[in-house]
Amino acid sequence: MTARAAAIAPGGIGNIGPGLDVLGMAVSGPGDRVIAERVLGRGVTIADAGHPELPTAADRNTAGIAAMQVLSFAGAENVGVSLTVIKGLPLSGGQGGSAASAVAGAVAVNRLLGNPLDPMTLLACALEAEATVSGRHADNLAPAMFGGISLIRSLAPLDVIALPVPAALRIVMAHPDQRLRTADARAALPQSIDRALVIAQMANVAAMVSGFWAGDLQMIGRGLEDQIAEPARAPLLPGFIAAKTAAMEAGALGGSISGAGPTSFYFATNDLSAQRVAHAVRDAYAALGIACDTRVAHVATQGAIGLSEDSTSV
Amino acid sequence: MTARAAAIAPGGIGNIGPGLDVLGMAVSGPGDRVIAERVLGRGVTIADAGHPELPTAADRNTAGIAAMQVLSFAGAENVGVSLTVIKGLPLSGGQGGSAASAVAGAVAVNRLLGNPLDPMTLLACALEAEATVSGRHADNLAPAMFGGISLIRSLAPLDVIALPVPAALRIVMAHPDQRLRTADARAALPQSIDRALVIAQMANVAAMVSGFWAGDLQMIGRGLEDQIAEPARAPLLPGFIAAKTAAMEAGALGGSISGAGPTSFYFATNDLSAQRVAHAVRDAYAALGIACDTRVAHVATQGAIGLSEDSTSV
Repeated sequence: MTARAAAIAPGGIGNIGPGLDVLGMAVSGPGDRVIAERVLGRGVTIADAGHPELPTAADRNTAGIAAMQVLSFAGAENVGVSLTVIKGLPLSGGQGGSAASAVAGAVAVNRLLGNPLDPMTLLACALEAEATVSGRHADNLAPAMFGGISLIRSLAPLDVIALPVPAALRIVMAHPDQRLRTADARAALPQSIDRALVIAQMANVAAMVSGFWAGDLQMIGRGLEDQIAEPARAPLLPGFIAAKTAAMEAGALGGSISGAGPTSFYFATNDLSAQRVAHAVRDAYAALGIACDTRVAHVATQGAIGLSEDSTSV
Repeated sequence: MTARAAAIAPGGIGNIGPGLDVLGMAVSGPGDRVIAERVLGRGVTIADAGHPELPTAADRNTAGIAAMQVLSFAGAENVGVSLTVIKGLPLSGGQGGSAASAVAGAVAVNRLLGNPLDPMTLLACALEAEATVSGRHADNLAPAMFGGISLIRSLAPLDVIALPVPAALRIVMAHPDQRLRTADARAALPQSIDRALVIAQMANVAAMVSGFWAGDLQMIGRGLEDQIAEPARAPLLPGFIAAKTAAMEAGALGGSISGAGPTSFYFATNDLSAQRVAHAVRDAYAALGIACDTRVAHVATQGAIGLSEDSTSV
């Protein structure tokens, strides 16, 4: 057992349009880091939650809960661990920040213990954290852990299928200056869904998944049509419909709300097209007086990784 | 324009478990044949519907409606066509018989006219027939037309994605001595579906589709779990649950109701395993006093084909 270990996990896109709770991808760019240090006493404490609005009680902090689960699964409840969370991802942004912190927390503490647990077990540990703070779903967690694009077939048993990553795919991440609580975004979802809509949604998810397997970006774009969550959440996200319309006119393959929002994402076939889409989205928000950060990214094929001692300084 | 043309189209499995209206596959074995003959007058008449219970009014007969559509799309409404249908597939069997007749009718009449229409247009013609007799869905039609495994992303526009066929996959088709009208089977489906079930169903469809792409029979089996139609229709199909239980115990990868039933199907990894599953299913039905035909088949990669003049004799 070392005295100190750290890990970083990428953010990403949950749902990926129609794949509510089922599909997610890791996206290049910022991630959340967690540093775990051995301390006297037993159990998990949070030295720094990474943001004033994040809870410092371990059992309400996503990295903390995941860490507690790891200690429990590893039979190391008598170990004392202090966590420092460094948020690279926005709070309530819809970029998988809570999942990335949970995964980084699990991986860091596992490293601290000498890696007794395998990645699927760490994923199960992180799932308990996500379930507590934003709902029992793994569409952000699995990509944060494994990288790439994940299909979550089932949570019990935990069955995750890695989908191929089309190398050409470019992603515009658009983060307007808005906040949307995951709980509010989930409350907007219908409890019950008309059968015709269910059939359309299943077909689109299957087409998008086929597009990933076939490396067919147009097919991915055709399948990227969410008739359930997007119409329910769009009214909570002023400017989203204008931004998406502008993105499609600028040549996006498709787009939707990332996770529970407010970040939206747009797929493009290359960097130039992605830059055009990013411009169009920024302009559309600006016309409504809403500031919006955009960046062009790609699927992050690397998931969570342990960081060397040099990287563990805050 | 020739005086006589014929075509045959394969039967198959609609829905393929969770893929309600979305997934279908053509299955080796019997198909429906349609012979189209040029006659005096204009429009479509049915010389022989192929079964005493099938309508001889062209506008209520699936082959007849498809033929009328072909004449209309081809601008050949002034042509007189007489159809002879030879049913290889059971009536109300859940093996895609109405779709096969519609597709064979469309292909035969198109040949009679000198092939003016492309296959996607013929599929649209057959869709009008299926919509009239059993509902607007193309999960049996597309495989009957193209062979293989089809994903129907959308009906308007008609968007069909061909999925790879795993060569090793074996299929047990089990046809108990029962009848279930498609209309009754569709009436049993819930109008509205709980969100948690929708998510599970999307995940299973996506996993099965991934299994076809990956050639991973175990993954196909894991995804072959229908939580919507199968539980709703099983009560209409005495013996099905016992048969499926026996099939799974005998080593089936998975199984479900074929289309609207009463035929059920089971996937297996090889011929020997499939034979074992077929035995188990027959025995399970027999224990309940229900006769059941079983056959071991594979995905039919060939869809509808025109038949030579020699084959057009009844």
